[in-house]
Amino acid sequence: MTEEFTFIGKRVPKLDAVDKVTGRAIYGHDMKLPRMLYGKILRSERAHARILNIDTGRAKKLPGVKAVITGYDIPDIRVGFARDNPILKTGKVRSFRDEIAAVAAVDEDTAQEALELIKVEYEDLPAVFDPEEAMKPGAPLVHEEAERNILSIMTQSYSHGDVEKGFAESDVVVEDRFKLTWVAHCCMGTCFCLASFDHAGNLTVWSSTQMPFMSQRELSMALKIPPEKIRVIKATIGGGFGSKLDTYPYEPICVLLAQMTGCPVRITFTREEEFIASPTRQPVICDIKAGAKKDGTLMARQARMILDNGAYSSWGATTPLVMMQTISSLYRVPNVKYDVLVVYTNHPYAGAMRGYGNPQATFVVESSMDMLAHELGMDPMEFRLKNANQPGDVTGQGVKITSCGLSECIEKAAESIGWREKWGKREPAEGPIRRGVGMACQLHVGGGARIYPSDGCGTTIKVDDYGKVTVITGSTDMGQGSETIIAQIVAEEMGVPVENITVVNTDTAITPWDVGAHASRTTFIAGNSARLAAADAKRQILEAAAEAYGQKAENLDLRNGQIFVKGEPEEGIPYAKAIRAKHFRPDGDLILARGWYEPPTEKQDKEFRGNISAAYAFAAQAAEVEVDTETGEVRVLKIAAAHDVGRAINPMAVEGQIEGGVSMGLGYGLYEELVVEKGKMLNPNFADYALPTALDMPPVDPIIVETIDPEGPFGAKGMAEPANNPTAPAIANAVYDAVGVRIKDLPITAEKVLKALKEKEEGG
Amino acid sequence: MTEEFTFIGKRVPKLDAVDKVTGRAIYGHDMKLPRMLYGKILRSERAHARILNIDTGRAKKLPGVKAVITGYDIPDIRVGFARDNPILKTGKVRSFRDEIAAVAAVDEDTAQEALELIKVEYEDLPAVFDPEEAMKPGAPLVHEEAERNILSIMTQSYSHGDVEKGFAESDVVVEDRFKLTWVAHCCMGTCFCLASFDHAGNLTVWSSTQMPFMSQRELSMALKIPPEKIRVIKATIGGGFGSKLDTYPYEPICVLLAQMTGCPVRITFTREEEFIASPTRQPVICDIKAGAKKDGTLMARQARMILDNGAYSSWGATTPLVMMQTISSLYRVPNVKYDVLVVYTNHPYAGAMRGYGNPQATFVVESSMDMLAHELGMDPMEFRLKNANQPGDVTGQGVKITSCGLSECIEKAAESIGWREKWGKREPAEGPIRRGVGMACQLHVGGGARIYPSDGCGTTIKVDDYGKVTVITGSTDMGQGSETIIAQIVAEEMGVPVENITVVNTDTAITPWDVGAHASRTTFIAGNSARLAAADAKRQILEAAAEAYGQKAENLDLRNGQIFVKGEPEEGIPYAKAIRAKHFRPDGDLILARGWYEPPTEKQDKEFRGNISAAYAFAAQAAEVEVDTETGEVRVLKIAAAHDVGRAINPMAVEGQIEGGVSMGLGYGLYEELVVEKGKMLNPNFADYALPTALDMPPVDPIIVETIDPEGPFGAKGMAEPANNPTAPAIANAVYDAVGVRIKDLPITAEKVLKALKEKEEGG
Repeated sequence: MTEEFTFIGKRVPKLDAVDKVTGRAIYGHDMKLPRMLYGKILRSERAHARILNIDTGRAKKLPGVKAVITGYDIPDIRVGFARDNPILKTGKVRSFRDEIAAVAAVDEDTAQEALELIKVEYEDLPAVFDPEEAMKPGAPLVHEEAERNILSIMTQSYSHGDVEKGFAESDVVVEDRFKLTWVAHCCMGTCFCLASFDHAGNLTVWSSTQMPFMSQRELSMALKIPPEKIRVIKATIGGGFGSKLDTYPYEPICVLLAQMTGCPVRITFTREEEFIASPTRQPVICDIKAGAKKDGTLMARQARMILDNGAYSSWGATTPLVMMQTISSLYRVPNVKYDVLVVYTNHPYAGAMRGYGNPQATFVVESSMDMLAHELGMDPMEFRLKNANQPGDVTGQGVKITSCGLSECIEKAAESIGWREKWGKREPAEGPIRRGVGMACQLHVGGGARIYPSDGCGTTIKVDDYGKVTVITGSTDMGQGSETIIAQIVAEEMGVPVENITVVNTDTAITPWDVGAHASRTTFIAGNSARLAAADAKRQILEAAAEAYGQKAENLDLRNGQIFVKGEPEEGIPYAKAIRAKHFRPDGDLILARGWYEPPTEKQDKEFRGNISAAYAFAAQAAEVEVDTETGEVRVLKIAAAHDVGRAINPMAVEGQIEGGVSMGLGYGLYEELVVEKGKMLNPNFADYALPTALDMPPVDPIIVETIDPEGPFGAKGMAEPANNPTAPAIANAVYDAVGVRIKDLPITAEKVLKALKEKEEGG
Repeated sequence: MTEEFTFIGKRVPKLDAVDKVTGRAIYGHDMKLPRMLYGKILRSERAHARILNIDTGRAKKLPGVKAVITGYDIPDIRVGFARDNPILKTGKVRSFRDEIAAVAAVDEDTAQEALELIKVEYEDLPAVFDPEEAMKPGAPLVHEEAERNILSIMTQSYSHGDVEKGFAESDVVVEDRFKLTWVAHCCMGTCFCLASFDHAGNLTVWSSTQMPFMSQRELSMALKIPPEKIRVIKATIGGGFGSKLDTYPYEPICVLLAQMTGCPVRITFTREEEFIASPTRQPVICDIKAGAKKDGTLMARQARMILDNGAYSSWGATTPLVMMQTISSLYRVPNVKYDVLVVYTNHPYAGAMRGYGNPQATFVVESSMDMLAHELGMDPMEFRLKNANQPGDVTGQGVKITSCGLSECIEKAAESIGWREKWGKREPAEGPIRRGVGMACQLHVGGGARIYPSDGCGTTIKVDDYGKVTVITGSTDMGQGSETIIAQIVAEEMGVPVENITVVNTDTAITPWDVGAHASRTTFIAGNSARLAAADAKRQILEAAAEAYGQKAENLDLRNGQIFVKGEPEEGIPYAKAIRAKHFRPDGDLILARGWYEPPTEKQDKEFRGNISAAYAFAAQAAEVEVDTETGEVRVLKIAAAHDVGRAINPMAVEGQIEGGVSMGLGYGLYEELVVEKGKMLNPNFADYALPTALDMPPVDPIIVETIDPEGPFGAKGMAEPANNPTAPAIANAVYDAVGVRIKDLPITAEKVLKALKEKEEGG
């Protein structure tokens, strides 16, 4: 870039990084209030069973226990997208994680002991675990109120063009079924909630939510407390990745315990609870079919998906809306059909997780793209290039593509991985090891996502007499580094040092509204909002200086903390001096500025058409792998990850997001799987759940492609989720390139590869 | 009042009252941070002595002790108005409270044990305790750098008119010497400080300060930390009354301990420390002379004061500036002279305390007024009425009196106490008991006090989608109830329910600037600022409604939470609906408002002239007492306290201030005295220090006089300190009326009365 920026594009370390790594940061888990009690939740030990009796008598008598509640003691309070999740179950349990009773006690040991004293009598019910079985008439019903185990509001059918005509006009058509399983977010910080009432019934909740303003609304709806009496503060949390997007039963339970005892109550999850009682990324069964002309022109794509929703509906049930965008709009494809069913089972339930369905959709689309290329006899990279989305495209679903670096991402990832030398070679020719390369691309919202009536963010700025800038933003930092990005944007726009900026966020009583940290929207939306507020603050400062120094404001500028007459930057005065001159006089004033940004987007219509985001983020990742044909083991040698981020406000933060996303994608592709047997999670801990560690990480080449988005703050687009979407299919495609077998269900374990190699051998 | 207000003039309970009385409020003493250490301070056991050696060796070795510091380990850091107070003393100690060493340890017991292990060797120096002795050449020097024990910058001389001519033209002249002693604030909550650094050296201090922005500046100056790196948060405190106005040694000590240990450190005072190590109200020796014509016209007043400053100079050293206003301007007095010396001794040092010198000045002026009336043979109440300040007066010192209800206060207090029936009667004629009535008036700033270059306050307001109004004010609530007053002002101005308002204050990183809670300025200054912000918010809401409902904004009004076309209040729509309509649309916006108020006042010139306040508060208190002539015991039967408050925003809060002020005045008049012997405080506890309790309180008739100040918010003026100023002289004057003896040094104990009666008897 030839533009001269002081803070944009600079590798500014995260403002909170050192405090986090040195243990100074105060997480929710560290919080203690006077008189605070500890809450704990008893969960179901059956997948599907009638509750015959809950005996809390002995628990209540245990010294130190202040409250024991069951669903029979409280009104019918339900949470979740479909309001199908009673916070404490009565009548029956539908999965192993079901909340049955809760206690508040003077310490955690006493609370745990009380849980053990509660006796629950069950009568087992026939359970259903296979979503295809669950769909059938006559299957045991998870929710008896419904006729079938199908979440009807998420039974969606989308199409553009004519997919049958598209297949008819295709020279090659591929079709296959893919199966994706559960994975978990594995946030380093577990969930917590601390609830405290004042005398007037005003509730303050310190929680791990990613969406404080939504949480305020949800808690109000669940508990019938007026929203204006609820204050939600996100304490420091150790990661979100979508797992803290929804309101879960433990949060209203915590509030109820506080209400009943008159004391603050804190609930923190153990690691095992974090696995069992947090949502998961949902299993998907997908039949995908795609067709293309001989020359490589993509003609049609059809996908049918069945999502295993588990027993209850969190926001995860709505991920088909994101999957749909990838099915409809990743690459130019004139004819598309997409059908989806969300099915209840007695499994753990599914929530939002980084990519919000896009890792699954990208896996099936990018696998089918690879299969098509193979059928066409084309280089899969060239096939992708030929069909890549381009700036100015409007897709069949109404996605308006403005800035778009997809082709550049493909080229750069290919170059970095050595695609042209390595693809199709299956080297070395000798020995059991074969190497291969694979690629996958992705499309994701990068300029907000208009799901709610407002997708905006507000910001206020105060500048004190010393030039300290306090930015009060609606946005939420859950570890992704948005505080730092906002500080850089404000510093650049105002022309003041980044270390003079404090970012205050995520307290519904203090901060202006924002919908929350989801859809990779914070840099774009909160960044634009902060930029507007910063421009307002700068205007006020220059006007103050103009008054004090007898200059017109429009002739002045502020850079590096100095105010100067334009064109004469060498003779500046410190901006704090101008602020003080304005403050300390009879008709003075303070610098108090504001900004509000609402992206120029639209909600989807009933046919799911509409431009819900003000920008889109593209990426291409290429993987090089080696496969041991004797053991089936796959080793990733390198991931080249090229991301169109619009502009990298902070290249170090972008690289961190890329590396983090690739690491999650690597886990999804090769290692991670929640092993669930008859509804019961068998590996809810880091010993048995194979989260990749630093030693498992291949070298990653993070390639930043800058397309300078016309609407983004300084040209930036969202890029958090995109880094996670294409990694697994790139690896799967590389495995195919290496040994000619396509693994259609993740993770790609040595056993599956070995089995596929054997089948191929036998088949061939 | 005929104006119709919804919230102004209403008895709204303090927003924080129930949380405080039920123990839910979280005071600074309740705060704990992870890894927090406990700090304690070793204080001098001598009044004046050379420090020969400080042995910290054993303390440092005690397990659990993390840091031990003395003044020899740190730079020369000084605090206080005259920068004469090293935070840890080296070379010598100058009073019993002097800080010698500090420790930080894992718990308070360990910290205390460590203090006991520190051995200090002293060599006594000749000390000086009598301020008149201390002024003499050759007296032992408290600060050897100075030539004399006089704080030269506070050696002030003021005059207007010609006092000698005034006395010459007077028909009667009275003259006497009064002596006032130490009293303590006795805040229910003791001092505390909690200091914590982040990795980047940013310091957060939770403290009991009344002046967060001044504290930020003072800590910066003391510790050489840039002010923009210091965040000061006032935690919930149990009263201030001026004692938490200055920065004291324990605060930078706490910060240093945090810096050295890398851990948060908290220091909380015990009750004994609160007595010993907090500042006091200063002892004053005052020679006052006053003259009047036969017809009762006041002609001249002259006062010479000597203040016992103790060993160091806190803001208390500057109280002559307030005393001067009462000397110069209480009643119309054409010729005035005032001279003051502030003298160092080896006594406990003096700070700011409710009234800031005015209780002492009012005591001497109102005693001399009574003496004059007696000499003239006039009813002291009529004498006061004759000379009372009137609206439109500009006093010799340049005090511009706008609203003024002094005459009405005198009349109403007289009426309430039954003055005309009771004065001069000395009833009953039989038995040892005599009853009498007395009166005293007062003048105090009621519209800020321009001491600093800015006397303003900033406010921002956010209104959320539910109509919840967050008011972020620069002002500080230290228990006086300013949050509630600000909420009422905002509710009235906006037209929304007061329970929808949250007031956020006293966090330098969040709130706009304000100079702090002193000079009874918060209702006036912060109230005006809040009103401006509320008007801005209302304008934005009405504009939002105008857009949404096709009306012109100027035709709309907002009252009781409903927006309606002017004149048609019955067909309103909820204001939150208009806010949501504005928010949830593509070109929407949030309601984010701001206000800044700087009073139209001026700093005093070199001759101490100038109108430093935008309004003045007047009051008259009348006391009825009975005196037992056999024991000397004085019992107060009733206090009638008539206060010109401009307008009572909250009559219940005004009454609370009056009752609280009268209770402190009662203690000052009859009971309280810090007994100091050779520099050592002998009664630093509530068993021996006679703070009046509920059982000691007479009936108080709080009379609110409303003069509707033209500049005040809804006509209100400040009224916190005034309630404390005239009580003691009213009681003293009543004692004189009852038994004909004038007690010239407080408190008026039975011994003093009995002695005076005996002397009178012997003399007569």
